[in-house]
Amino acid sequence: MILTIAYDGSAYAGWQMQVGVVTVQQRIEEALAKLFLSTPRLHSSSRTDTGVHARGMKAHFDVPKAEFRMLPQKLVLAINAHLPEDIRINGARKAKSGFHARFSAIGKQYRYFVWNHPSADPLLRRQTWHVPRALDLTAMRTAARTLVGHHDFRAFSATPGYERENTVRHLTRCDVLRSGALLTFRIEADGFLYKMCRGIVGTLVQVGFERFRPDEILPMLESQDRSVAGMTAPAQGLVLWRVYYKASNRLQTTALMTM
Amino acid sequence: MILTIAYDGSAYAGWQMQVGVVTVQQRIEEALAKLFLSTPRLHSSSRTDTGVHARGMKAHFDVPKAEFRMLPQKLVLAINAHLPEDIRINGARKAKSGFHARFSAIGKQYRYFVWNHPSADPLLRRQTWHVPRALDLTAMRTAARTLVGHHDFRAFSATPGYERENTVRHLTRCDVLRSGALLTFRIEADGFLYKMCRGIVGTLVQVGFERFRPDEILPMLESQDRSVAGMTAPAQGLVLWRVYYKASNRLQTTALMTM
Repeated sequence: MILTIAYDGSAYAGWQMQVGVVTVQQRIEEALAKLFLSTPRLHSSSRTDTGVHARGMKAHFDVPKAEFRMLPQKLVLAINAHLPEDIRINGARKAKSGFHARFSAIGKQYRYFVWNHPSADPLLRRQTWHVPRALDLTAMRTAARTLVGHHDFRAFSATPGYERENTVRHLTRCDVLRSGALLTFRIEADGFLYKMCRGIVGTLVQVGFERFRPDEILPMLESQDRSVAGMTAPAQGLVLWRVYYKASNRLQTTALMTM
Repeated sequence: MILTIAYDGSAYAGWQMQVGVVTVQQRIEEALAKLFLSTPRLHSSSRTDTGVHARGMKAHFDVPKAEFRMLPQKLVLAINAHLPEDIRINGARKAKSGFHARFSAIGKQYRYFVWNHPSADPLLRRQTWHVPRALDLTAMRTAARTLVGHHDFRAFSATPGYERENTVRHLTRCDVLRSGALLTFRIEADGFLYKMCRGIVGTLVQVGFERFRPDEILPMLESQDRSVAGMTAPAQGLVLWRVYYKASNRLQTTALMTM
């Protein structure tokens, strides 16, 4: 069974189960434990950090066939009834055999929200990074275009442990929309390194401050050195927006309408 | 001095000062009391109810000239420094003599947000009314158009005390935008009766449920009877969006960029 999950990450120590703190995975597994005799283990597409949100997180779990008599529509309602209001299952569908929420994913989209106004926005305060200074949006967009393509993103990622890994990713979209004071960064790739999105946004905002020029982005990528690229944007502006799979993974249409 | 104020109303018993509960007006007057020798009294354009939000609330206050040496820009930062993060001053400008935030207002826009999806949205849960059932948007829009114009809105308002008052208002806009699961109602008038916006939205949503037909709206207005119109939508979806004044009230441009 594959779930589509939305959550306000403000109150959680991220997605992944950890001892001594409350996580989103833990809350959902607790809800599942109330519905099944076994305690299903959730396998997610991504592991979001403390304070990061999601609208389209995917996670799958296996249950013994004997236990499974509920339609996906009913399952969504049943799980939600056992969840706190800052976590919601938006959809469920049966998984094809061999499907894995993480390893079958072919791409992901994150969105990052910046509130660019001298005063913070009280209604969006937990979902935006408040940037009071004026930003050069044209320079930011030029820099964002430079990032699109196949690149080694090591310089934009929090690095420990990447020494022997392939850190090349294919960034398929990186743009910035403005609507009043609200900036929306849309960042799409075949995969993301740890804190890569926040490294990209932090650096682009510093381009907006004229701390970096757009033509400094390519040398940053080439340096493969975290200390050369810009700052890491704070967690609360980041939302895991969507996870992409091959259409062939679909066994049936989603149980609930999707956005 | 005129302030533009935004707040998340979730934690407050509305705008207006009351004994025994915490209100938005109280929090801002407390902040002002830290900046001036006198305790300035705030006069607002509107009195929002418990749980209702604002992006463009206006309020004015008078201070003795001798006390007032701060530029509006500085004043905004100084007040915000003494406010909780769910209330923010977005702008300040000097008021023309005789200006009154309430009596000089010539119109207001409210917005109401509905999350129309089987599952609630965790990120917008405090700012939307969750309506899980499908809605007939075409019928809602037809009904909304019927409401525009000069009408007696007594049937759409919580009524005590209106018996001898003029309850005719000029509704200049009433439309519904859809973006994915998010519906935005934009309701603009020269003035609003108590709970009138929420009565309009509740009734339009019931039109969407086919509980009422669009051609029943006009007879509702004509009935002047609250029990004939539809339900009152819950508070948390409502935002006081903007208050309009004659340009002649402007002594100077706003201190901060506005949305």
